[in-house]
Amino acid sequence: MSDGPLVLVLHGPNLNLLGTREPHIYGVITLAEIDATLRQIGANSRPPVRVETFQSNHEGVLIDAVHTTGAGACGIIVNPGGLTHYSVALRDALAAVGRPVVEVHLSNIHAREEFRHRSVIAPIAVGQIVGLGAHGYRLALRYLIDRHAGGADDTP
Amino acid sequence: MSDGPLVLVLHGPNLNLLGTREPHIYGVITLAEIDATLRQIGANSRPPVRVETFQSNHEGVLIDAVHTTGAGACGIIVNPGGLTHYSVALRDALAAVGRPVVEVHLSNIHAREEFRHRSVIAPIAVGQIVGLGAHGYRLALRYLIDRHAGGADDTP
Amino acid sequence: MSDGPLVLVLHGPNLNLLGTREPHIYGVITLAEIDATLRQIGANSRPPVRVETFQSNHEGVLIDAVHTTGAGACGIIVNPGGLTHYSVALRDALAAVGRPVVEVHLSNIHAREEFRHRSVIAPIAVGQIVGLGAHGYRLALRYLIDRHAGGADDTP
Amino acid sequence: MSDGPLVLVLHGPNLNLLGTREPHIYGVITLAEIDATLRQIGANSRPPVRVETFQSNHEGVLIDAVHTTGAGACGIIVNPGGLTHYSVALRDALAAVGRPVVEVHLSNIHAREEFRHRSVIAPIAVGQIVGLGAHGYRLALRYLIDRHAGGADDTP
Amino acid sequence: MSDGPLVLVLHGPNLNLLGTREPHIYGVITLAEIDATLRQIGANSRPPVRVETFQSNHEGVLIDAVHTTGAGACGIIVNPGGLTHYSVALRDALAAVGRPVVEVHLSNIHAREEFRHRSVIAPIAVGQIVGLGAHGYRLALRYLIDRHAGGADDTP
Amino acid sequence: MSDGPLVLVLHGPNLNLLGTREPHIYGVITLAEIDATLRQIGANSRPPVRVETFQSNHEGVLIDAVHTTGAGACGIIVNPGGLTHYSVALRDALAAVGRPVVEVHLSNIHAREEFRHRSVIAPIAVGQIVGLGAHGYRLALRYLIDRHAGGADDTP
Amino acid sequence: MSDGPLVLVLHGPNLNLLGTREPHIYGVITLAEIDATLRQIGANSRPPVRVETFQSNHEGVLIDAVHTTGAGACGIIVNPGGLTHYSVALRDALAAVGRPVVEVHLSNIHAREEFRHRSVIAPIAVGQIVGLGAHGYRLALRYLIDRHAGGADDTP
Amino acid sequence: MSDGPLVLVLHGPNLNLLGTREPHIYGVITLAEIDATLRQIGANSRPPVRVETFQSNHEGVLIDAVHTTGAGACGIIVNPGGLTHYSVALRDALAAVGRPVVEVHLSNIHAREEFRHRSVIAPIAVGQIVGLGAHGYRLALRYLIDRHAGGADDTP
Amino acid sequence: MSDGPLVLVLHGPNLNLLGTREPHIYGVITLAEIDATLRQIGANSRPPVRVETFQSNHEGVLIDAVHTTGAGACGIIVNPGGLTHYSVALRDALAAVGRPVVEVHLSNIHAREEFRHRSVIAPIAVGQIVGLGAHGYRLALRYLIDRHAGGADDTP
Amino acid sequence: MSDGPLVLVLHGPNLNLLGTREPHIYGVITLAEIDATLRQIGANSRPPVRVETFQSNHEGVLIDAVHTTGAGACGIIVNPGGLTHYSVALRDALAAVGRPVVEVHLSNIHAREEFRHRSVIAPIAVGQIVGLGAHGYRLALRYLIDRHAGGADDTP
Amino acid sequence: MSDGPLVLVLHGPNLNLLGTREPHIYGVITLAEIDATLRQIGANSRPPVRVETFQSNHEGVLIDAVHTTGAGACGIIVNPGGLTHYSVALRDALAAVGRPVVEVHLSNIHAREEFRHRSVIAPIAVGQIVGLGAHGYRLALRYLIDRHAGGADDTP
Amino acid sequence: MSDGPLVLVLHGPNLNLLGTREPHIYGVITLAEIDATLRQIGANSRPPVRVETFQSNHEGVLIDAVHTTGAGACGIIVNPGGLTHYSVALRDALAAVGRPVVEVHLSNIHAREEFRHRSVIAPIAVGQIVGLGAHGYRLALRYLIDRHAGGADDTP
Repeated sequence: MSDGPLVLVLHGPNLNLLGTREPHIYGVITLAEIDATLRQIGANSRPPVRVETFQSNHEGVLIDAVHTTGAGACGIIVNPGGLTHYSVALRDALAAVGRPVVEVHLSNIHAREEFRHRSVIAPIAVGQIVGLGAHGYRLALRYLIDRHAGGADDTP
Repeated sequence: MSDGPLVLVLHGPNLNLLGTREPHIYGVITLAEIDATLRQIGANSRPPVRVETFQSNHEGVLIDAVHTTGAGACGIIVNPGGLTHYSVALRDALAAVGRPVVEVHLSNIHAREEFRHRSVIAPIAVGQIVGLGAHGYRLALRYLIDRHAGGADDTP
Repeated sequence: MSDGPLVLVLHGPNLNLLGTREPHIYGVITLAEIDATLRQIGANSRPPVRVETFQSNHEGVLIDAVHTTGAGACGIIVNPGGLTHYSVALRDALAAVGRPVVEVHLSNIHAREEFRHRSVIAPIAVGQIVGLGAHGYRLALRYLIDRHAGGADDTP
Repeated sequence: MSDGPLVLVLHGPNLNLLGTREPHIYGVITLAEIDATLRQIGANSRPPVRVETFQSNHEGVLIDAVHTTGAGACGIIVNPGGLTHYSVALRDALAAVGRPVVEVHLSNIHAREEFRHRSVIAPIAVGQIVGLGAHGYRLALRYLIDRHAGGADDTP
Repeated sequence: MSDGPLVLVLHGPNLNLLGTREPHIYGVITLAEIDATLRQIGANSRPPVRVETFQSNHEGVLIDAVHTTGAGACGIIVNPGGLTHYSVALRDALAAVGRPVVEVHLSNIHAREEFRHRSVIAPIAVGQIVGLGAHGYRLALRYLIDRHAGGADDTP
Repeated sequence: MSDGPLVLVLHGPNLNLLGTREPHIYGVITLAEIDATLRQIGANSRPPVRVETFQSNHEGVLIDAVHTTGAGACGIIVNPGGLTHYSVALRDALAAVGRPVVEVHLSNIHAREEFRHRSVIAPIAVGQIVGLGAHGYRLALRYLIDRHAGGADDTP
Repeated sequence: MSDGPLVLVLHGPNLNLLGTREPHIYGVITLAEIDATLRQIGANSRPPVRVETFQSNHEGVLIDAVHTTGAGACGIIVNPGGLTHYSVALRDALAAVGRPVVEVHLSNIHAREEFRHRSVIAPIAVGQIVGLGAHGYRLALRYLIDRHAGGADDTP
Repeated sequence: MSDGPLVLVLHGPNLNLLGTREPHIYGVITLAEIDATLRQIGANSRPPVRVETFQSNHEGVLIDAVHTTGAGACGIIVNPGGLTHYSVALRDALAAVGRPVVEVHLSNIHAREEFRHRSVIAPIAVGQIVGLGAHGYRLALRYLIDRHAGGADDTP
Repeated sequence: MSDGPLVLVLHGPNLNLLGTREPHIYGVITLAEIDATLRQIGANSRPPVRVETFQSNHEGVLIDAVHTTGAGACGIIVNPGGLTHYSVALRDALAAVGRPVVEVHLSNIHAREEFRHRSVIAPIAVGQIVGLGAHGYRLALRYLIDRHAGGADDTP
Repeated sequence: MSDGPLVLVLHGPNLNLLGTREPHIYGVITLAEIDATLRQIGANSRPPVRVETFQSNHEGVLIDAVHTTGAGACGIIVNPGGLTHYSVALRDALAAVGRPVVEVHLSNIHAREEFRHRSVIAPIAVGQIVGLGAHGYRLALRYLIDRHAGGADDTP
Repeated sequence: MSDGPLVLVLHGPNLNLLGTREPHIYGVITLAEIDATLRQIGANSRPPVRVETFQSNHEGVLIDAVHTTGAGACGIIVNPGGLTHYSVALRDALAAVGRPVVEVHLSNIHAREEFRHRSVIAPIAVGQIVGLGAHGYRLALRYLIDRHAGGADDTP
Repeated sequence: MSDGPLVLVLHGPNLNLLGTREPHIYGVITLAEIDATLRQIGANSRPPVRVETFQSNHEGVLIDAVHTTGAGACGIIVNPGGLTHYSVALRDALAAVGRPVVEVHLSNIHAREEFRHRSVIAPIAVGQIVGLGAHGYRLALRYLIDRHAGGADDTP
């Protein structure tokens, strides 16, 4: 919690398996690689932005992280995994800390099963990026960095 | 239609009003400014990418543009405006030409009226970016350029 | 587009057939007769109000008219015809120009097929008049003239 | 029940509070003022039309009024208030006496809560005017007077 | 518009791509070939039947064609493409001119996505032929010719 | 099961009453007349096609017929009557024998009661013809004959 | 409230109009005639059964009658009119007094508008008779008399 | 099929078990006893009415009976058992022969499982009697006899 | 209407039967006993609070009471009985007078029939207490007294 | 019907095709092989259990079998095939005889079309085994044998 | 776990933030303050009641607490937070230990988003208090203490 | 993780209470007894199969177990308890490791509350056994052992 702005990146259930399971849906890149890239992007920003990444299969642990780390961040990137579709508790946590949230999904949830089309998180997020693979995380981070720097001021 | 890859950017009904109407929802940037930025990003890419932008309030004109220009593009960015929620005809046009489509919405459609939560376009797009203002277009363009360059190969 | 307030009257798809087709539903008066009456009412008002009428079977053309003419009007009367039930694009156009809109239907849409009961336009209109035949247009015009003259101040 | 045609104006539950409660929704004009205006319009018609106005918070009392007074009227204006959305009994009463009914709502029910969008009265009415404030009553009365005089013959 | 009966064949959005796109869904025959066959069938009938074919990606242009050409035809064949599922405006146009309509779909819309199962056109058509490829058009034409010749009199 | 291809024509419950009951819905032609016409068309084809017709009011008997006769046919025409809307068992029988099925309805089921709009058979059929009266059977037979002869190769 | 068993007959809103309004739906017999017949049937029973009949357009008055008279009856016949479809309060009153209830409707509510198919009263009634006109009342009364006499003991 | 009017009584699936199974739902009287009573009532009528009773667990057999016997009856009483909720084929058979139908259920289907509340038969019946046990059959028969005798003329 | 704050307690339809009917659902305490307890609690408060209690089976009478007495109260306790689920008119009355409302139900409406789960009153109430029997009234009164005294200031 | 307990195994429509049709869904084992295995398992039990197997494509025949044979069995295994989703008549038959029922499906109905997810039989069965192929029958038989022997006493 | 009755108070996800976040929804009082008040109320009761309070953002931890502590309590107060709307697992835990449960919500969930109107917990609770802020907890505690002391015996 | 195949048995929330709570729903056998029986069955198989059993009330802990142990198993038996109806996260975990899953429920979920009828797990399982009490686990285990041994090859 030292100097410099912070972006919290939260990965929900099963994302630890990334790159090892169901590559036809989620791609071959691993979560460690994604996280490394995101930290690198943060470090290269001027001024630099700390990027803290975190994965858990436990809804409660994710909520705790939102409370403790998210509350002090200038933005939160969240891929809620399967929790996307029912975790009102995670939604409430994100809404409570009042930081800008970008929701990311690797696959196009609108092209999958009907029950994946609805996100209980989306209405309290600033925005959502779906279907662009690991790019989604990077684009979300760039957006939050720009926004923090004041470059997102075309958004009302 | 000279040498070099092309990205087609389609703006649907009412987006010509951007920057002049309802700034609390859509921001103050104009469509001309967005288009100029996108063309600049394309020009600065290595190799450069041509970015052709087009706005119409006519569903049929947009479909024609998909057929004539979209079919030869390496990617299509589309903000279907109000057509998002019912134009199966535009969806079929985009699906028919078989190019990667990224759907963009300036506002967070999931935080607005219930009827805006469903997109008939999304299931045939590669992905969707919502709620990030004019950033959404830029992020979508970066994704398509990377993808064309082979940098999006983590996506299945 | 000279001096004096303007009311724009928009007739949607198939209303050009008025008086010639399905008189058991829509009556025998023609669109030209309706338009003439409306212009006359406007001319007889003190001060006079210009009434511009316009019919198209093209959603996009109607949207263009809202942008170009509607934006400068003191009120818009719209009978969206079949577009009533799905054209979010027309709704967005009307909402964007921010002028008071009165939606008119010749027949009682609540006494016809189930799918005609819902209007996507109504929520962004000031009000709606249905089932009163060509009277509906005249009553809507009187309301808009009164409102412009300040006589509608009982409405919050 | 003397000479001259009669229009019955029925105000449902809570409309007695008009002008004193929730002016941001219903305006500042009182029910007595509305009724006086309507009677005046009737008196000024040629030939004059008697306008009988009646308010009750009791569904049964309104039904009784439809049976006793409405059955002899040349038209009925009804603002059913909250009964709009469930009173099949009031609907059946209005349908039974077989007089032309115009339903009026001061506010735009389509722009309020979801449950207010459906009227069980509307399908048996000639038409409906919503959202035009106290003007709605006056426009409905003019329509019924014209219709009685034979001037509404463009309606099938 | 000389002597002899006329059948109007309307092809909706994207059907211009027939034979060149998504052959696994729509087959390899082109629209020009279909139209030529239909005109030939008409010419070979005794007495001959003029067959006028028309394709547009614009809802409004299709409606105009129904008004101008369809009104004088002895029958209309329409493949509304994606408009099938929402264009109440096209439905109203077809209903207004009052000519027998046969709706045709190349693919079996009941075996595709859920939203393609419902046609807003079908309830005002005489009948519907789906899933039989280009044959559907030919069978529809034979039906309309027989019907015009009085051979369809087993239909009530 | 001698030489030559076979088309099985199945008529479901109540079709034995054809021509004698509810002619305003189903026409005046009898089932025997329809069957005779179909057999004639088959006999006149080159090479000839045997047409076996069968009617039953019993779901189980129809399923048996699909198993014993339908399995050896080059195509099946089925008018499932009231079973259309619920008989998953008949659907499964038709799907199991794997022959091309054309579903026929004399009346336009989309213009009748809501519950008649959905067919549980249609998704496993090649196609469907509705509303064209007894013509529907003939057109379906022509399609199956052409398809067997290889003339339906524009269909994917 | 003298000696002998009592059957209470409740007629809901608008039934006072019986025989004078909408005879194509409700028949030409008047409520007074129905009531007289029912009292006669009761008087002719051995032992005689008092039949008390009551009509009101007021939900609250009907509930009061259930409390005061219905509680002491050996059975209640109720035609709730339009209240059938929403009056949980009347349902609760009938359930609270715990007497056998037979619900009667003159017309076949299942053959009318969709919203008339559901009765909130029926689940707490012993049974329901619909569509048999004034016969329905008589049959209900005979059932209740038999039941009270012990002759309905085949019903569990 | 000799002289005198005929009422056909149809009992659907499982009603052969009556009186032996689930008496807490269906009572202890057997089907034979019910049928005997109904025949007796018919014989005692002046003039006498033949009552033919029939039970089958087979939908197709019931439909055949409607065609062969029902078509010549002056009325049909049907307890469709479980078929009530899905057999459009039985409905169509009953509608096709055009005789007055009274639907009977021993138990109150509105007080049982949700799926039993809807009858596909009811909309084409004259009326329905539910929940009155074996009384229901007797009351239905009395109604049909009266109706045939002209005594049901209060019903429109 | 003398000095001191007032709490209005409204009991809806059938609550007059309390303690005498269906004790397995509603308990054995009578309404008079509940009312006496509530008045006692009010009298014992410092400063004392007048508690006015009122029961009616008539929706309209309850609405009148809200207008005349409720408008001057510092809080309203309402148990709307069966009206809970449909009386938009009562809801509108309560909303119009703008006093804090606590809705009370003796039984747990969420553990009863599906249609009892939804209250049209609840959204305009401050809060709701269900399932705690007569305690619910007492707790609601204590809350309103505390709130009036300023002791409820932890509530936003 | 000699000595020893009996288990009835009922196979519904189309299961006679097992092993010969659609092996990718239903496997390659034939119904005769399944039946033989089940009889063998019964014979090998101590004490032995008679296993009677029966297949029909006729709903009515299956119901008859439930009545005649099922009523005397110690358990019934039923694979209702397509009837699973609508045959309330078969459900009622199984419920009426009151023997423990185990429903078996070869394929996983929850992974197939939406309409196959609901079974009208399941709520009156003891349990259900789906997706385990022919194993499902064997496991169901072992359960019923254990249950009859008293070994299933952990189940309430 | 010494002598004396125990009430367990469970606070679900995000309630640890109480008083620090979104005070316009949840008020300014902290969870520690609420808990202290509840313990004080318990201590002041005669005989005293131990009040154990517990908060967790983890569904599983809450379920564990129900099993270990709740099973020995004389009552449980639960504010399930966001879990209210989906946690069948928490519901099952509460139902399994069989202690009286009172569900509390600080805000009026019926006046918030649609998805918050349904509680999966409520049907297995004794009752529910919503919208009364921190008062809700205190009132729930008083109820449970009274109930344990036998003072809640008016509730069935 | 030594030699020999492994079957993982996962018990979800509240199953630790088995045999001690709600025996009328879940039976009297304890989880320890079930687990011991399953391990015994595994040990007695030839070749022996290791059976690892695991219970948790924490969704996240169950997901972790699927990742760490389930991924190396030849099959997984899961009784997800209350998570059955909403845990997309657990579903995704089971799908990701790609091992055959059999879902088990002790009670017949189709005979309980409506919300228990849908399982989000079932579509990705091989099959499901419900309602057979502790037998369900044993039958599932036998299936998985047979399948691993190649004896389940009749399943496609």
